[in-house]
Amino acid sequence: MVKQERAARTRRALVRAAAEVFARDGFVLASLTSISKMAGVSNGALHFHFASKQALARAVEEEAAAVLRAIGASARAGGSRPLQRLIDATHALMERLERDVVVRAGFELGSGPPRRDGSVDLRGQWQGWVEEVLKDAERDGILAPGVSAADASVTVVAATVGFEQLGAEDPAWTSARTLVQFWDLLLPRLAAAEILGGLQAGGTTPAAASRQE
Amino acid sequence: MVKQERAARTRRALVRAAAEVFARDGFVLASLTSISKMAGVSNGALHFHFASKQALARAVEEEAAAVLRAIGASARAGGSRPLQRLIDATHALMERLERDVVVRAGFELGSGPPRRDGSVDLRGQWQGWVEEVLKDAERDGILAPGVSAADASVTVVAATVGFEQLGAEDPAWTSARTLVQFWDLLLPRLAAAEILGGLQAGGTTPAAASRQE
Repeated sequence: MVKQERAARTRRALVRAAAEVFARDGFVLASLTSISKMAGVSNGALHFHFASKQALARAVEEEAAAVLRAIGASARAGGSRPLQRLIDATHALMERLERDVVVRAGFELGSGPPRRDGSVDLRGQWQGWVEEVLKDAERDGILAPGVSAADASVTVVAATVGFEQLGAEDPAWTSARTLVQFWDLLLPRLAAAEILGGLQAGGTTPAAASRQE
Repeated sequence: MVKQERAARTRRALVRAAAEVFARDGFVLASLTSISKMAGVSNGALHFHFASKQALARAVEEEAAAVLRAIGASARAGGSRPLQRLIDATHALMERLERDVVVRAGFELGSGPPRRDGSVDLRGQWQGWVEEVLKDAERDGILAPGVSAADASVTVVAATVGFEQLGAEDPAWTSARTLVQFWDLLLPRLAAAEILGGLQAGGTTPAAASRQE
């Protein structure tokens, strides 16, 4: 392995270990020694890559933000209608929250007191994406009569943040089953009658399908 | 003032000050000195009432739990139908989260890592209440056809936990306006057609009305 590859691999191991320790102990109590131990590297190697605990937290959040952007981009690339894109993105997000400690820790680092200075606003990023896709749906005329993109955004953002929070204690909240219950309830109110039959509450991506097996 | 009254007053001041400091600094960073200073009492007086920071957190959570029980009981005493009771209770909860730091800190103390041992499960208590009132609605036959109490509970609990979490950063999320947007969206799907017209998304209690002025 060339030196550069090894450095990149060490950095990735440190970010993942930091996420594990932040998720377990919280940012304030997390120790750099636990992080370097979990990553299997020396304290010196940690300090070569990251100047502080703050820098590690920032790296965790940035990796989570990149995952979130990829989820949005992939839902758009699917080419389906805005409401299906929204459903697919929520399944992708819950699936990542369930199995990827970096995404979970990224969201947790930005919530609750004390709020860290300069932390990445993952919930704000998610909210912005949800609002945009619902505005697309409104523009396409596929929202039910009398339903505004704004009202729908408030409900979808609050519920998904709730799933994320409750899921930290009990993974049933981020399961495909719970999300399908939510969409089964909401879709008949949200979608115009003529497109409702074509929407799949369980998502249309292979990842969403595999979660429901 | 007799001695007993003064002791009760000091205890109340300490619980409120603890809530302020927990909400601002988080449990881990909160210092007993900040709490006694904010309450305007000596460290000795603090230790006379509370053996530890843990005991103070427990007292904050227990006061918040009592408020939550009172919200549930008062919604029941209103005598209205289960769905209106649910709407009224969500308005009462958001209103308390907005103006009462003890309730806000109580919810925050139970969330996020590190989870404190033996903390009161306020979200679990809220979830239990929501499930019960929606089961009443199901039993009374006032849910829309095809809607189960379980699906409705998942959505209402997740959204209200989301409002609570997002409201800690931006009070717009716990405002009456946001909650009315949520109920306006959800009710036509949730309630049987024959009772929908009688439901008020803005709540029927004087407190709910005053929030919307």
